[in-house]
Amino acid sequence: MKEELDTPAVLIDMDIVKENIQAYQKYCNGIGINLRPHIKTHKIPELAKLQLNEGAVGITCQKISEAEAIISEGGISDILITYNIIGQKKLMALKKLSKRANIAVVADSVYCLEGLSRAFEDSKKKLRVLVECDTGANRCGVISPSAALKLAKVISSNNNLIFGGLMTYPPISEPEKVNSFLAEAKDLIEKNGIKVETISIGGSPDMWKVKKIPIANEYRIGTYIFNDRSLLHRGVCKERDCALTVLATVVSTPTDYRAIVDAGSKVLTSDLFGLEDYGRVLSKPHLKICQLTEEHGTIISENPTGLKIGQQLKIIPNHACVVTNMLDSVIFVANEMPIKHQKVIARGKVW
Amino acid sequence: MKEELDTPAVLIDMDIVKENIQAYQKYCNGIGINLRPHIKTHKIPELAKLQLNEGAVGITCQKISEAEAIISEGGISDILITYNIIGQKKLMALKKLSKRANIAVVADSVYCLEGLSRAFEDSKKKLRVLVECDTGANRCGVISPSAALKLAKVISSNNNLIFGGLMTYPPISEPEKVNSFLAEAKDLIEKNGIKVETISIGGSPDMWKVKKIPIANEYRIGTYIFNDRSLLHRGVCKERDCALTVLATVVSTPTDYRAIVDAGSKVLTSDLFGLEDYGRVLSKPHLKICQLTEEHGTIISENPTGLKIGQQLKIIPNHACVVTNMLDSVIFVANEMPIKHQKVIARGKVW
Repeated sequence: MKEELDTPAVLIDMDIVKENIQAYQKYCNGIGINLRPHIKTHKIPELAKLQLNEGAVGITCQKISEAEAIISEGGISDILITYNIIGQKKLMALKKLSKRANIAVVADSVYCLEGLSRAFEDSKKKLRVLVECDTGANRCGVISPSAALKLAKVISSNNNLIFGGLMTYPPISEPEKVNSFLAEAKDLIEKNGIKVETISIGGSPDMWKVKKIPIANEYRIGTYIFNDRSLLHRGVCKERDCALTVLATVVSTPTDYRAIVDAGSKVLTSDLFGLEDYGRVLSKPHLKICQLTEEHGTIISENPTGLKIGQQLKIIPNHACVVTNMLDSVIFVANEMPIKHQKVIARGKVW
Repeated sequence: MKEELDTPAVLIDMDIVKENIQAYQKYCNGIGINLRPHIKTHKIPELAKLQLNEGAVGITCQKISEAEAIISEGGISDILITYNIIGQKKLMALKKLSKRANIAVVADSVYCLEGLSRAFEDSKKKLRVLVECDTGANRCGVISPSAALKLAKVISSNNNLIFGGLMTYPPISEPEKVNSFLAEAKDLIEKNGIKVETISIGGSPDMWKVKKIPIANEYRIGTYIFNDRSLLHRGVCKERDCALTVLATVVSTPTDYRAIVDAGSKVLTSDLFGLEDYGRVLSKPHLKICQLTEEHGTIISENPTGLKIGQQLKIIPNHACVVTNMLDSVIFVANEMPIKHQKVIARGKVW
């Protein structure tokens, strides 16, 4: 692929991708926890397969339609969908999908379980369901170990469902709280004669602190494959570990202290994640992307920017997972050379 | 179309769309200014045609690839691309496109003009170029009337280009400043024997205050076709004028005071526009969408939310233009009934 790269473009450095996958798989192997990468970050089956080949036990999807797109490419057969599946159309799609792969889902309410049960009533295969727990992140999930027990009982006494264990998206930097919630829930449930097979936790910010939640036996994580500026800022990775960059061109230099690039909120997104600006310009720490409009990024600097119109810049975005979602395709790079345009296969799969 | 609507989905109320188009066209007719709607908001040729049929003089696009997608659907022939076109591939695409429609572009540098000139060197048709002015919004544009004159001279003395006039995206609520910049630039340029045909301004926040910039003769505007929560918050429209809503389903109610819907930042986006939360839930002013993760929206309330799992809600997003960009298709609604799935034809046109 020798063509001039038009901008804005999302570049994926495959050398760094492979290093990231290997390094974290090695870490998980070392502490004896299963790794189940979340494909929401890349939405590309080829990358999911790299993760599986390195030792991941399966993948995580956030939506049935994403799982469908990934499965359709072949070669992937074990998927946890970490979402309450609600509504007739989604339930029917889930049932259909479960014939093509080993699918497990999560639930945090009797309402959700009743729907799942009805959908699998006449199915030969039972559906594996994990109970989602809110261990402090204030997202979905039952808010107490006793509520987890209640749902575990509903699942294990249901003919169409199998109790698969517990799942949570832990709050950042509160491992003790998470461990004690999950340990208490496991204990309660097992005292009731129900085996808690999987305890699945996850999250990129605490990816190197998994040992602090020893009750868990599965880790779900998305961003680690690319890393991004929010993880860089938290000290979770180094700049050289960032595999995804947005290539942009300077299109205007209204003053010596301001330049405009052709990457705005429709590529970089408005995700700030607690940061003050919209990305880090590689090798140019003096530049600040202070504002995004839809198709423009404004770069300012206390000293002259030194930027020229036509010049291309690489930007590490604040949040990699939402950037891949903005484009129909990304560009794979190896040995610092673009090697192919890659469709973001599971993008645009709304439900 | 009688199917159950799956969520998240973007609904476009065509009755409101038509009222919005008519009302603003009437306003522009009343004050004698040309209307050139920006299709970045909807990216759908069918809606652009409604705008043209009502009296718009042409459309605005932000990217060549968007213009290409719109033109390919037929019936649209007058397009202003409000972007500095930089780089060989884009210039060649622009040249090709200019054979299929009346295309004008903007420029704010000699660098940009040189590229445009080279691209149109052997073209039968000259390219119309407006000089972009930074009248205070700190985006692209020359920062002084004298710099505008300089570029107007370069354009009008170039064999491949035609000077089309001045263009700016004005700062919000500073009409006097904008008018005086543009009046001074026009005066300077015309004193040099160069006619300033078009003076194009725009922007939704000040859409009802156009008379305060009497020097302008063209208005570009995108959001008015749908309106959104940011305009609602500014008092520019009423809730009943909001044509675009995100349909979401409650998927979890962890407590009486918290509910989770299936619309997160991959549908509503993280655009805050100075607001504190991520959208307005229709008919439920007590609810606050306090947090978005990628596929979940967290709704909280001081009193019990009253929400049930499975319940569908309509949300007015903070910024309509970025929401249509998240999905491959939207759903047109008329008489409060869904009538068709409509592809967002110019979405994903990166450059």
